[in-house]
Amino acid sequence: MPPSIETLGTAALPRRGFLYGAAGALAPLLAGNAFAQSAQPNRIELPPTAASTEVIDKIPGPGDAPEQRVGFAIVGLGHLSLERLLPAFGRTQHCRPVALVSGERAKARKAAAQYGIDDDSVYDYAGFDRIAQNPKVQVVYVVLPNSMHADYTVRAARAGKHVLCEKPMATTSADCRRMIDACDSAGVKLMIAYRSQYEPMNRAVVDMVRKGRLGTLKEFISTNSQNMGDPGQWRLRSALSGGGAMPDVGVYCLNAARFMSGEEPTEVVAWMHSPPGDPRFAEVEETMRFMLRFPSGFQATCHTSYGAHKSQMLRLLGSDAWVEMDPAYAYEGLRLRSSRVVDGQERVEQPGIGEKDQFALEMDHMALCLRTNREPLTGGAEGLQDMRITEAIYESARADGKAVKLQAPAGPTRGPDPEAPQS
Amino acid sequence: MPPSIETLGTAALPRRGFLYGAAGALAPLLAGNAFAQSAQPNRIELPPTAASTEVIDKIPGPGDAPEQRVGFAIVGLGHLSLERLLPAFGRTQHCRPVALVSGERAKARKAAAQYGIDDDSVYDYAGFDRIAQNPKVQVVYVVLPNSMHADYTVRAARAGKHVLCEKPMATTSADCRRMIDACDSAGVKLMIAYRSQYEPMNRAVVDMVRKGRLGTLKEFISTNSQNMGDPGQWRLRSALSGGGAMPDVGVYCLNAARFMSGEEPTEVVAWMHSPPGDPRFAEVEETMRFMLRFPSGFQATCHTSYGAHKSQMLRLLGSDAWVEMDPAYAYEGLRLRSSRVVDGQERVEQPGIGEKDQFALEMDHMALCLRTNREPLTGGAEGLQDMRITEAIYESARADGKAVKLQAPAGPTRGPDPEAPQS
Amino acid sequence: MPPSIETLGTAALPRRGFLYGAAGALAPLLAGNAFAQSAQPNRIELPPTAASTEVIDKIPGPGDAPEQRVGFAIVGLGHLSLERLLPAFGRTQHCRPVALVSGERAKARKAAAQYGIDDDSVYDYAGFDRIAQNPKVQVVYVVLPNSMHADYTVRAARAGKHVLCEKPMATTSADCRRMIDACDSAGVKLMIAYRSQYEPMNRAVVDMVRKGRLGTLKEFISTNSQNMGDPGQWRLRSALSGGGAMPDVGVYCLNAARFMSGEEPTEVVAWMHSPPGDPRFAEVEETMRFMLRFPSGFQATCHTSYGAHKSQMLRLLGSDAWVEMDPAYAYEGLRLRSSRVVDGQERVEQPGIGEKDQFALEMDHMALCLRTNREPLTGGAEGLQDMRITEAIYESARADGKAVKLQAPAGPTRGPDPEAPQS
Amino acid sequence: MPPSIETLGTAALPRRGFLYGAAGALAPLLAGNAFAQSAQPNRIELPPTAASTEVIDKIPGPGDAPEQRVGFAIVGLGHLSLERLLPAFGRTQHCRPVALVSGERAKARKAAAQYGIDDDSVYDYAGFDRIAQNPKVQVVYVVLPNSMHADYTVRAARAGKHVLCEKPMATTSADCRRMIDACDSAGVKLMIAYRSQYEPMNRAVVDMVRKGRLGTLKEFISTNSQNMGDPGQWRLRSALSGGGAMPDVGVYCLNAARFMSGEEPTEVVAWMHSPPGDPRFAEVEETMRFMLRFPSGFQATCHTSYGAHKSQMLRLLGSDAWVEMDPAYAYEGLRLRSSRVVDGQERVEQPGIGEKDQFALEMDHMALCLRTNREPLTGGAEGLQDMRITEAIYESARADGKAVKLQAPAGPTRGPDPEAPQS
Repeated sequence: MPPSIETLGTAALPRRGFLYGAAGALAPLLAGNAFAQSAQPNRIELPPTAASTEVIDKIPGPGDAPEQRVGFAIVGLGHLSLERLLPAFGRTQHCRPVALVSGERAKARKAAAQYGIDDDSVYDYAGFDRIAQNPKVQVVYVVLPNSMHADYTVRAARAGKHVLCEKPMATTSADCRRMIDACDSAGVKLMIAYRSQYEPMNRAVVDMVRKGRLGTLKEFISTNSQNMGDPGQWRLRSALSGGGAMPDVGVYCLNAARFMSGEEPTEVVAWMHSPPGDPRFAEVEETMRFMLRFPSGFQATCHTSYGAHKSQMLRLLGSDAWVEMDPAYAYEGLRLRSSRVVDGQERVEQPGIGEKDQFALEMDHMALCLRTNREPLTGGAEGLQDMRITEAIYESARADGKAVKLQAPAGPTRGPDPEAPQS
Repeated sequence: MPPSIETLGTAALPRRGFLYGAAGALAPLLAGNAFAQSAQPNRIELPPTAASTEVIDKIPGPGDAPEQRVGFAIVGLGHLSLERLLPAFGRTQHCRPVALVSGERAKARKAAAQYGIDDDSVYDYAGFDRIAQNPKVQVVYVVLPNSMHADYTVRAARAGKHVLCEKPMATTSADCRRMIDACDSAGVKLMIAYRSQYEPMNRAVVDMVRKGRLGTLKEFISTNSQNMGDPGQWRLRSALSGGGAMPDVGVYCLNAARFMSGEEPTEVVAWMHSPPGDPRFAEVEETMRFMLRFPSGFQATCHTSYGAHKSQMLRLLGSDAWVEMDPAYAYEGLRLRSSRVVDGQERVEQPGIGEKDQFALEMDHMALCLRTNREPLTGGAEGLQDMRITEAIYESARADGKAVKLQAPAGPTRGPDPEAPQS
Repeated sequence: MPPSIETLGTAALPRRGFLYGAAGALAPLLAGNAFAQSAQPNRIELPPTAASTEVIDKIPGPGDAPEQRVGFAIVGLGHLSLERLLPAFGRTQHCRPVALVSGERAKARKAAAQYGIDDDSVYDYAGFDRIAQNPKVQVVYVVLPNSMHADYTVRAARAGKHVLCEKPMATTSADCRRMIDACDSAGVKLMIAYRSQYEPMNRAVVDMVRKGRLGTLKEFISTNSQNMGDPGQWRLRSALSGGGAMPDVGVYCLNAARFMSGEEPTEVVAWMHSPPGDPRFAEVEETMRFMLRFPSGFQATCHTSYGAHKSQMLRLLGSDAWVEMDPAYAYEGLRLRSSRVVDGQERVEQPGIGEKDQFALEMDHMALCLRTNREPLTGGAEGLQDMRITEAIYESARADGKAVKLQAPAGPTRGPDPEAPQS
Repeated sequence: MPPSIETLGTAALPRRGFLYGAAGALAPLLAGNAFAQSAQPNRIELPPTAASTEVIDKIPGPGDAPEQRVGFAIVGLGHLSLERLLPAFGRTQHCRPVALVSGERAKARKAAAQYGIDDDSVYDYAGFDRIAQNPKVQVVYVVLPNSMHADYTVRAARAGKHVLCEKPMATTSADCRRMIDACDSAGVKLMIAYRSQYEPMNRAVVDMVRKGRLGTLKEFISTNSQNMGDPGQWRLRSALSGGGAMPDVGVYCLNAARFMSGEEPTEVVAWMHSPPGDPRFAEVEETMRFMLRFPSGFQATCHTSYGAHKSQMLRLLGSDAWVEMDPAYAYEGLRLRSSRVVDGQERVEQPGIGEKDQFALEMDHMALCLRTNREPLTGGAEGLQDMRITEAIYESARADGKAVKLQAPAGPTRGPDPEAPQS
């Protein structure tokens, strides 16, 4: 009976033992700093099996045991929660769902049963504040219609829970500030669920920009569009959504232009359009086009629509090279290409960056922030800044393209980079 | 407080309520038959949000509650178990890990803690047979070196457990038969973990072939190669692996040629090669090339190597069109293209088939087979047939390419198609 | 001695004899109308050799004998003329170069020698008007700096020659009108060299739009950029070029938005940018962004730059599908993809449309227009309309994005489609 | 009147003047050696217009004047001659068609008229030998059915003409030797038209192999297939073609395995197949599969078919990387990809190598060989070697896969590399 059958050959190669652990694609970024170390208490060592010219096989360390994981309450059980968020917990290292909040008890109970959530951790909206008494819940993940983000964030903060809130942060910048203040007062963390900022291909673009691989940044061009159905859905009701394509899918373009460049826009101009008579667009815009001017001369030209066939593309042009993501904003199937001249030839490269579950990465980031008491990369200030720009975009669009100036944000909008060493 | 905030708009569209559930990509295939119905006791209905010209958003029903899931014991904790299988349980609908078997107790305990497995459900190899007394374990998943598959399958069967066994099924056809007999005698099911056969792109190829979309099948061309490292690893020790590239990665080409065509080969010819002096290939072959002849005139030309840079491609040529998968056999990132003439133009099509976790699909299939008392699609007969052909390939290769005839298998090698209605 | 060795097997298949001829990719479009018939007086029949499921091999008929071809004078011997236009004559069916006009006699003589052009058909700019006495010259192809297009077109018309003029047509709409009037007065044809409109993939997009394959047209998104070098080149001198990126490369985006949609914009808004201190952009803009509004609600969002790495992309979004060209505006290597939902899957298709030399197609179109006395598809009215819109774009950009209204053009801007039957 | 309008700005940048010339993609390879210099007597200098981070615009020098070009007689006017070879002359730098040989006078006259060939330079097969008296003809390009290559090559050599002969060189190695002897005796050059060896992407693969970019070469995998139509065509008649898919399209795989690796095979094994009753394959094989063993351990696994849908792929696997061409053997639209690990990621690169007309490159090579009195890269010895291997392939296939040993060729099969300096 082999005592150690899984690692036969290890003995021959102790010097080559590899250490793995941490949160998937973030692992290399996290390596070597305290933020990262906290993530891998249970590392497992396995020897590599492939030649050094192959992709080295990486063993994610075992995630935390269930009872050690950060407990999340999911507030709102629509498509995103049921299709993406709840399944994503199985791909996290540090998170687990421990409570559900829904207006439909039967549905909530079915979902709770699947994920091993106790029946008494299923709340309705009226009873939501009782979550304060639930010690399993450390984070409240707000997945409600946009206009309800603020109230539920404030209520969660008052209940003493940290908050992860879906984008867009809210429907007004005043609400954003209210959310920030409430979390500050309560001494809880607030993170906005900008999943792209945790996704490895997006991070690779940021890294290329920082290293000057594109030369001088020139232009960000992007569209994020999809053709909506059911005119009765909440996303098409202004009081719930705060707008149409812009806050829902256009915000991806806006946010990517900002975090990829690392700059903040100083001026916006925008045009808005809805086809007359289309019942879907009685309250919210079908289409928004907007241009952003940044201090360095970098600019962004973006389009977002609720009436065009699904199209999710971004292209970032520098003086010396460009990168493209297409699809750029999808939940899965992202593709990154870059093009530059090598040896007198225009060479297109497609890096083999494996996809990761963006929701799992985002939730694990929140969990690590709690454990290390760091501010999230995408905290309330980041969401507020997008909201301020979105308001300027609407202002310009309502004035048929009048240029609207933007003040600089009060301070940095993003928290410390996960990969930066902690001082 | 909205009573039903997640489904606002549903009321307007009751006639469009969609029913979802079942095992991801197999759901459409399973729809409408008893095999499928058993999979979705907890369906959740959500209305679609996109226009009919968009991909319709599908809500997987909630998977089974933890205690209702089929319990698996994982035997062997190497790369595959730790990196792929254990994480995949979170993506299944019907499975959970309930026991681990390993020669390294510390490692096993770490993994057990992560997945909420009781400490007393962690076994070593000597104590494996005690699993008979563990009522949580319904399926034993054998993930050991190839030569140990037979013994552990037999022991599991004797313990009254169903068996899911990694490919290759064993190292000899005699062992395969021993495994089949033991499972038959014990009245337990035996499934071989041919994950590709449960993967949606592979199924789409099978579907295209069945519908005649390629015309007359002509040729299957494939390579599955990777450049191995550590000469001490068990895969390079003949007594444990039973061979080199052929049984480990070449078996993917062999199996795909068979299940994609639906035919069984009648003759093989093969050549084997190892670079002299390479310490990795003292016991097993580096490279195998083999050709298969099938009754209809269809043929397969395959290559597999442990010394070439990772390359995993298959191309299936018919008289009227071809399909390609590249990569074809990877755990993720699979890509399917087809080419045929449309309107006088050679048109390349890339269907938007979302990837699914192949291990999750395979494990859910096993679980559904238990529940519906069906034979697995890839049972022992399927593994035995590949083993018989592999033996013929080695016989030909050892005789430097002598043609070796193959008898037809005793009966069908594959169980009922999951998508076929149950009579 | 085989009497007919090339067509062995023809006898067996007379019913399958194929007729070919005409101008390459336009052949199928031209088939069956008088315009087309005139193009193929010398058809050669060869039997097909491939199965009907393969791309049918097409034999272009022999082009016209040299002395029967339409004679072109090339005015200006820069990159485009030497690298693209002169070599393209060998790929035409109906054209030949018979005269050159250049300020550098030695260079012109070298080029003339290569193409078998008589020494006395080499002119300098002062002597250009003597071309009137050269009966070999039927068409003058103006390939000079933009500001010189008008004068040389007028002089060519006065010399009784038809004119093919490079884009942009001129540097002012007044000049465009002067060119149209001069050609009208002289009774000669005027065509603007919008090569994209003759290129098969572009035509396929137009065809898809016409057939409603994209649903309702929603948005055209495009960039055409390149990073310029030598600050002394004429393209960066306003007096010669009339502008920077906009008229030179931005005009491709503008023109494509118009001919692909078949609509004319009613309003434009634009922003202009040049990096301070860059010697290349002392006189002309580096970057122009512009948005166009069309009557149906269709809109265009375009970007063009002389400072970003070469990037040439367009994406046309409809309610039901999108098409992309990338690169879209290159001389060669164009790629067309489309995406729509088929059987519940987002399917990307890449039609196998072989590339053709765009300059050869454009010149052959001019030749056929002379022979059949038709107006060119892209005549003076097409160039004037782009010039009018370009002026509005500059007007808006100089007013920092003020919306500028556009009157409809006086009549149709494009001539009869080559593929439409001639009444 | 600007005296030098095309080169405005040149004065400012004399130090950056670029010299161009020579045969397109071969230019960089040819640069700086006598072989190359002879090709560019008429260089034209134009300044670059793009930034150094862009692909530098290259001006091909003017090709030779018509009367200075090497005169070719095309023997046989089937698809290849009419569709590919005659049009390709317009893309050469040094070649022109001056005579045609055909059994169908009317067709030949039409083609002659198009290309400005004198009527008295149109021959029939009986009168072919009179070509000896035609001083315009320097090279005879034999484009006849395979079995006629030998006789027409011998007759051309006796007429004192150099010979460019289509692949396969002949239908027997005895014929190949007869062709070599005849050309040697006559003191004329003999080149076989292996167009791939002159194509830039293929050359890039050779260059990567030479520089060790793939590590140790391991395997060449390829298919070249097409579905034939008309059963009466000469390619399906053994007496004319000498075989089916193997000599016609399989020879591309065979030749590429050899020139890409730079090795000669020492052993072959092959299997042949034709579907019973298919009238197309009464005389020749539909399918050939063959494996080649090379001295270093490198091997090739190839498939070729006349019954499968067009598929033209090659993949070359090394220990450290792979390269793929798909399509690999087409006249146009070739695509090259490579994959290796960079920074721990599997990176796919697609170099921007512009396509060139393979026939033009091949003919220009022949012309330069005449002018510099060099042996062609792909002379008679190269064709003979493929023929010897083809005979061994048939021998093995007729013996149902018996291994057949191959003697090394008598000497190098390929002439000096065009890019190597001439000693």
